Amino acid sequence: MIRAGILGATGYVGAELVRLLAGHPGVEIEMLVSQSFAGQKISDVYPHLAKVSDTVCEALDAQKAADACDVVFTALPHGASKDVIPQLFDKGLRIIDMSGDFRYNDARVYAQWYGQPHSSPELLSESVYGLAELHRDKIKNTRLIGNPGCYTTCSILGLVPLVKNGLIDHKTIIIDAKSGVTGAGRGLAQDYHFCECTENTKAYKIGTHRHTSEIEQELSLLAGADIVLSFTPHLIPQKRGILSTMYASLTAEVTTEELMAVYRQFYKDEYFVRICGAGLPQTNRVAGSNFIDIAVVADARTGRAVVVAALDNLIKGAAGQAVQNMNLMFGLDEKTGLLAPGLYI
Amino acid sequence: MIRAGILGATGYVGAELVRLLAGHPGVEIEMLVSQSFAGQKISDVYPHLAKVSDTVCEALDAQKAADACDVVFTALPHGASKDVIPQLFDKGLRIIDMSGDFRYNDARVYAQWYGQPHSSPELLSESVYGLAELHRDKIKNTRLIGNPGCYTTCSILGLVPLVKNGLIDHKTIIIDAKSGVTGAGRGLAQDYHFCECTENTKAYKIGTHRHTSEIEQELSLLAGADIVLSFTPHLIPQKRGILSTMYASLTAEVTTEELMAVYRQFYKDEYFVRICGAGLPQTNRVAGSNFIDIAVVADARTGRAVVVAALDNLIKGAAGQAVQNMNLMFGLDEKTGLLAPGLYI
Amino acid sequence: MIRAGILGATGYVGAELVRLLAGHPGVEIEMLVSQSFAGQKISDVYPHLAKVSDTVCEALDAQKAADACDVVFTALPHGASKDVIPQLFDKGLRIIDMSGDFRYNDARVYAQWYGQPHSSPELLSESVYGLAELHRDKIKNTRLIGNPGCYTTCSILGLVPLVKNGLIDHKTIIIDAKSGVTGAGRGLAQDYHFCECTENTKAYKIGTHRHTSEIEQELSLLAGADIVLSFTPHLIPQKRGILSTMYASLTAEVTTEELMAVYRQFYKDEYFVRICGAGLPQTNRVAGSNFIDIAVVADARTGRAVVVAALDNLIKGAAGQAVQNMNLMFGLDEKTGLLAPGLYI
Amino acid sequence: MIRAGILGATGYVGAELVRLLAGHPGVEIEMLVSQSFAGQKISDVYPHLAKVSDTVCEALDAQKAADACDVVFTALPHGASKDVIPQLFDKGLRIIDMSGDFRYNDARVYAQWYGQPHSSPELLSESVYGLAELHRDKIKNTRLIGNPGCYTTCSILGLVPLVKNGLIDHKTIIIDAKSGVTGAGRGLAQDYHFCECTENTKAYKIGTHRHTSEIEQELSLLAGADIVLSFTPHLIPQKRGILSTMYASLTAEVTTEELMAVYRQFYKDEYFVRICGAGLPQTNRVAGSNFIDIAVVADARTGRAVVVAALDNLIKGAAGQAVQNMNLMFGLDEKTGLLAPGLYI
Repeated sequence: MIRAGILGATGYVGAELVRLLAGHPGVEIEMLVSQSFAGQKISDVYPHLAKVSDTVCEALDAQKAADACDVVFTALPHGASKDVIPQLFDKGLRIIDMSGDFRYNDARVYAQWYGQPHSSPELLSESVYGLAELHRDKIKNTRLIGNPGCYTTCSILGLVPLVKNGLIDHKTIIIDAKSGVTGAGRGLAQDYHFCECTENTKAYKIGTHRHTSEIEQELSLLAGADIVLSFTPHLIPQKRGILSTMYASLTAEVTTEELMAVYRQFYKDEYFVRICGAGLPQTNRVAGSNFIDIAVVADARTGRAVVVAALDNLIKGAAGQAVQNMNLMFGLDEKTGLLAPGLYI
Repeated sequence: MIRAGILGATGYVGAELVRLLAGHPGVEIEMLVSQSFAGQKISDVYPHLAKVSDTVCEALDAQKAADACDVVFTALPHGASKDVIPQLFDKGLRIIDMSGDFRYNDARVYAQWYGQPHSSPELLSESVYGLAELHRDKIKNTRLIGNPGCYTTCSILGLVPLVKNGLIDHKTIIIDAKSGVTGAGRGLAQDYHFCECTENTKAYKIGTHRHTSEIEQELSLLAGADIVLSFTPHLIPQKRGILSTMYASLTAEVTTEELMAVYRQFYKDEYFVRICGAGLPQTNRVAGSNFIDIAVVADARTGRAVVVAALDNLIKGAAGQAVQNMNLMFGLDEKTGLLAPGLYI
Repeated sequence: MIRAGILGATGYVGAELVRLLAGHPGVEIEMLVSQSFAGQKISDVYPHLAKVSDTVCEALDAQKAADACDVVFTALPHGASKDVIPQLFDKGLRIIDMSGDFRYNDARVYAQWYGQPHSSPELLSESVYGLAELHRDKIKNTRLIGNPGCYTTCSILGLVPLVKNGLIDHKTIIIDAKSGVTGAGRGLAQDYHFCECTENTKAYKIGTHRHTSEIEQELSLLAGADIVLSFTPHLIPQKRGILSTMYASLTAEVTTEELMAVYRQFYKDEYFVRICGAGLPQTNRVAGSNFIDIAVVADARTGRAVVVAALDNLIKGAAGQAVQNMNLMFGLDEKTGLLAPGLYI
Repeated sequence: MIRAGILGATGYVGAELVRLLAGHPGVEIEMLVSQSFAGQKISDVYPHLAKVSDTVCEALDAQKAADACDVVFTALPHGASKDVIPQLFDKGLRIIDMSGDFRYNDARVYAQWYGQPHSSPELLSESVYGLAELHRDKIKNTRLIGNPGCYTTCSILGLVPLVKNGLIDHKTIIIDAKSGVTGAGRGLAQDYHFCECTENTKAYKIGTHRHTSEIEQELSLLAGADIVLSFTPHLIPQKRGILSTMYASLTAEVTTEELMAVYRQFYKDEYFVRICGAGLPQTNRVAGSNFIDIAVVADARTGRAVVVAALDNLIKGAAGQAVQNMNLMFGLDEKTGLLAPGLYI
């Protein structure tokens, strides 16, 4: 059994990790760390977990983590991660970090988008960007994963087949993404008060959201060229789900059927990527699961490709992807513990 | 492996059965019957099931069902069940029926509340009311289950400890129940149009809802007296979840703590019944799971007990309870395939 | 023109008062007081009011209020009201207070339910309970209104015709009320985070909610006897609207039609009370308006009356009722500025 | 008083027209036409209108309409409009049509996007596109208005200042629009069942939605060039509100502040257009009102302008805009009857 710990267990991503790991046949949860709820059972903080996991949360003790665990998931606020992780790494633990701190190849990009220098740049050469569909082999051979962002996973996987096959002019990429409110986490703010979210849709951080830089990094790597793109996040009145609608000019005349065939071929061995048959992706078809659904349309009138991708921001966009990475790191079947479909209704 | 079939696979309860059985380690889905979608894959009708169950729906063939299946779940509209079930029963199948047709001990009660005579009253002596927490032994030894209604399960399990222990005056029972919209099924009606449901709460069928008679039957059996009670269903703007708030005059001066202790003792061996510690039940803590959460308050000012119970109407109130019954009928651990907690957020 | 001020203008009730008074043909808003947002335009805090009211919020100056205003609406947190109001009252202002502080005839009842002695009990003999349908004449002749609570208005108006006509046994009254989240106000708390409210219903403060005492006071007055009743509030996943479902044993055999006729007669001159024709009240039919919709059912099986009433907690349950009271205090048509129906969809 | 009739009074747009006209000080509703509900009071079909408008719906009688009304609003299904309108027009009535039938200058464009020839192309030279902010003078002098679509109004008004001032390369325009479910109307379909809409977001009709052609027509007129653009509609889980996010490459280096100044100047005399100060548009700030809120951002990294616009699809996107047009046609202040702000919460 893999002995697992979660740092930041009482945030929304942390609670999802508890839920997924408690149902994982090859994992034992050994340690839940929460500063705010140390001494309380996780099922007192999240009563839906009663009888599922009644582990008591505790304060962080890095040595104890190293002794008790084989792998630690860090679901901490930005900034907190990079102070804790080096000492855990030094103790030989495997680490899957949910923050932005270890997602970058270049510390300068991090500094530019996060507004502060990276505190442990030397670890960036150790860390692997944890998108299994692109970096599976590296993930199997690292001890430190920068688990991708939610918007990021949805957008990169949606665009990769076009970029990789040179089917679009990468100067024309525009990503319009819509996210449910769990993406903002458990913290309180006026914007996330029920009465201000429900019956409401809005854009935010136009052109400045940090996930932009992750998407550009990964697509640039694939294209072998520097890609600069437009990314606009929106908040929509639902709990879970991201829908990314992506636009780019086609480099050749192709039909929707031809593009769909490209996608089917590209993802033919990826269990968690579903290319839609009829119909377009909807967030309620993936919410609760580790699937990402994708469709692509060739619009002959405008000469553009329009890609739509949907995933559950807390699962394929966070905790589920983290478990997928853990499975790879420990040599398990990648799908272990991740087979539950969403509920739809 | 248990070979299972579902009649009415494309309704909401049917789709939940597919989801649960597809993840059940001891079951093979052998047949999905749908009149409306015969010839289509279940995953075309419900794309969230793509890669999970791609079984093709077919029209009903009773002989084929008998040959292919060990157990059949019938999730048909009321009325349809009682025409099909006798022939399936005669062929030796085990049957778990989701309609009201086989929930009654007395055909006259059925006739009174359903407005028509029962068409196979002789089967009522074979059928068992499928509430495992009350009738576990009978369920293990029958071939025909009348699977309880959603409001019913929530209300009966909430009141049983009080009724059984003579703690309330059973002439004073009032049940005020609130249900999510999936309880109304997949069919179209103006009342279930998104724009007319969202931001809306209403009562309906005051004093006349059919589930009243099921609750009265089961509580009367336990009390050894005819119980007549008030039941008011409400529609609330959410997909899943029933919350029942129940009132009755106490027959003695007791404290909340004493009542809670009665509940804990009564349900101490029931995995799917969780008696709340601190706090009261909430539908989002059970939605997606087979749990029912219950709390009870003694109100000294009024001399009443107030019980609150919450469950997922499609799971513990329908498909999950059906799988629980199947497990019992086939000698499996009752919890098999039903361990997933809800998502909460 | 009536010169009006609002203390606590940036809470949800305050913002509703701004909206209603800005559209009132006989009112000029002279002063908006907000501690948190002093110096900012109300339309910066609530951008839906841009071009509607761009008044700048200011800190409280009681003398300035007395000079600038004829009437002041106080929508302050509980406790704050009773410190400010005596000085405003002494300066000769008319005051409509939205808190619980001036709703009681007896300071002892206040102390019992609010857990602290009343700080200006002498004003309780001046203050009038601002439910126009019951106390219209007194409202016209007072300078201090204790504006009723939201649950309270809904429940009292729903039960008055039965109580007044001796049609129910008042020892048997049970009120099961469901409220939208705006009832909890603009303040932040985990319980009101979008992700924890949506798709969720729960009961709270069973038997202990303060509005219980208001309902008991008013119904006892009408009955000429001490009424003690059960009141259970619930939180439902919508912004606006309260639905109260009320139960009591009938003292005589009556039909639904007879009860409906009693209600129609009782409220025949009340514009804002609508007795439902066919169908039952729904919150989406009153949300956005000052109407309360009521229906009553006689349940012969149980010998009980079941009353359902619905209103918008921020309008007929708060700001609209306050404007209705202001109209009466200043000799205007009671309906002035309150004629807009809700939006329904 | 203007004597008004509504054809198709019981659809969602029809019901909004009833609500707005019932509160309009210069209008008398003389006739409500509904095939489905002839003989029933509008307040029986829409009980939120009880005591507001209790007019009885009737079947269509064109002569009676001509005798009783000065203006007729036609809110009929597509296709129905063009059969009825010519005869009403011939009888001398003023007509404001909510369908797509009279929004086009060129019958060939209509035929191309609606898949059928236009049945009264001669009326297209009489009809005026009813977007007051662009065609105010023509609206004042016509008897036939093609009232703009909801997506259309939001998108055109959002882009006009950029197009008119040559600030963007019009080959690069991409519109990503999100609409609440009332935009789909009152009709029943699986897609609009509450359980399939809530907690869900999806794109539909990529590149093929009919409103594309309206947007292209109006922007091309302004640009003096044929504009072909990408338009993607989305369905979001809320009742009211459209948010359009629009992208185009800038033709010069400009700052956000400079673009905002262009918008402020362009719309300085337009009451119903609000250019956001701080913050970006949100649908809950305009829902319930006739306002459209707009903001624009210059993204220096990508050289693109990103415009966000929000309106209430049933008001500024349909019924409110129709009343605005009626006011202009009859020489009233354009704002009459349209001053109510939204409710926000």
